[in-house]
Amino acid sequence: MRLRNNPKAYEIMNENSDFVVIEPENLKNNWKDIFDNDRPIYIEIGMGKGDFIFQNACNYPDINFIGIEKYPSVLAAAINKIKQKEKKVTNLRLMHYDAIELEKVFSENEVDKIFLNFSDPWPKSRHAKRRLTSNKFLDVYRKILVDDGVIEFKTDNRSLFEYSLISLNQYPMDLEYVSLDLHNSPENESNIMTEYERKFCTKGPIYKLVARYRKNG
Amino acid sequence: MRLRNNPKAYEIMNENSDFVVIEPENLKNNWKDIFDNDRPIYIEIGMGKGDFIFQNACNYPDINFIGIEKYPSVLAAAINKIKQKEKKVTNLRLMHYDAIELEKVFSENEVDKIFLNFSDPWPKSRHAKRRLTSNKFLDVYRKILVDDGVIEFKTDNRSLFEYSLISLNQYPMDLEYVSLDLHNSPENESNIMTEYERKFCTKGPIYKLVARYRKNG
Ligand SMILES: C[S@@+](CC[C@H](N)C(=O)[O-])C[C@H]1O[C@@H](n2cnc3c(N)ncnc32)[C@H](O)[C@@H]1O
Ligand SMILES: C[S@@+](CC[C@H](N)C(=O)[O-])C[C@H]1O[C@@H](n2cnc3c(N)ncnc32)[C@H](O)[C@@H]1O
Repeated sequence: MRLRNNPKAYEIMNENSDFVVIEPENLKNNWKDIFDNDRPIYIEIGMGKGDFIFQNACNYPDINFIGIEKYPSVLAAAINKIKQKEKKVTNLRLMHYDAIELEKVFSENEVDKIFLNFSDPWPKSRHAKRRLTSNKFLDVYRKILVDDGVIEFKTDNRSLFEYSLISLNQYPMDLEYVSLDLHNSPENESNIMTEYERKFCTKGPIYKLVARYRKNG
Repeated sequence: MRLRNNPKAYEIMNENSDFVVIEPENLKNNWKDIFDNDRPIYIEIGMGKGDFIFQNACNYPDINFIGIEKYPSVLAAAINKIKQKEKKVTNLRLMHYDAIELEKVFSENEVDKIFLNFSDPWPKSRHAKRRLTSNKFLDVYRKILVDDGVIEFKTDNRSLFEYSLISLNQYPMDLEYVSLDLHNSPENESNIMTEYERKFCTKGPIYKLVARYRKNG
């Protein structure tokens, strides 16, 4: 998601430091403190405008959620959107960060689940390394996730999903769930839609998978 | 594929023993002899009326093909169909057998590749064990395949494909290829259609995967 560059993005982040984390490296190994409890931490990487992570925070108050977005302008849009909501939540934080560097922000075993939703497809094979399900990223996820940590991935992009099935298969992971047409699957009942999903779901199927790292795998 | 029971099925098999194997157990560990060469052996399990395996035999004369079908009446239909073809091939054999018992017919490492095409979906979960990609069958395949043996699987059945991705993932296998819409993939150029595929491909996507057992996996 690219938005016109928002010169006030950093200002907006700073003004909302009640739920926007400004220097996340300082919280490494101490995320429990910021939420003031021991509950599981689920993060979304590339959260865009944040509908999905906000709705999750509403629906699952016993989980702590962190939305991560690479582009400050996109994060600023998410901040503004969430501020307008009537419902307030205390189990949600947002931050601006590049997924490839998440080891600086989370220590081993600090994250229980990673959501990837409609990640950029990078269709050219010479850009495959940039896909959020390439081995470079999967190595990072493995380091910050608990031993039996989970990745949940949704996309409408057929090639990216095909690629991701093959990429994940190279890791000691159990594929726990696959849907090749989520919106026509029984599990859709509890599906929380993202902005992108709402926009593009009429054009073809939404694919989803859930994979769990094997303990001692 | 169920056909009306053909009371002459066994007769038809016996009359065509030049390419129909009547007592395949006798060939265990000796399939090279019947083909009179050392070439790789590819088998199709549940070959139906045999279009796919016959066309493969035509296109790839350096591979030996064996078509396997559980129901004698279906095998008889395949025999009659192949006999009508103008082209004759020497690298094809057919037999009537139940896949679950293939260890009686092939010894370890005797088969290089297994094709599964449009296998019966057995949609009820209490029938999952009957699916040709369930672990009961995958255990058999592993025993008769060479160490880095390959399974190629096509279907139009979404649930069966989802199930199969998860089922295969439990084995030490590399997923080498996945298409969630084979007929709109570049690899379709070399695709050989089955009877079933020709009939149903207008109704939705054809799914395909190729998986290879890991050596010493
Ligand atoms: C296509 S958008 C989807 C947004 C949202 N998940 C949705 O479904 O509506 C992908 C998002 O991922 C973000 N992104 C891409 N690479 C990233 C990375 N390495 N780290 C964090 N975010 C990233 C992009 O900036 C963009 O906002
Ligand atoms: C739906 S048909 C597909 C036939 C063919 N592959 C095609 O694509 O046109 C499935 C076939 O698998 C056969 N079959 C089912 N279970 C089998 C088993 N355990 N061993 C061998 N063949 C089996 C059935 O008899 C049937 O002919």
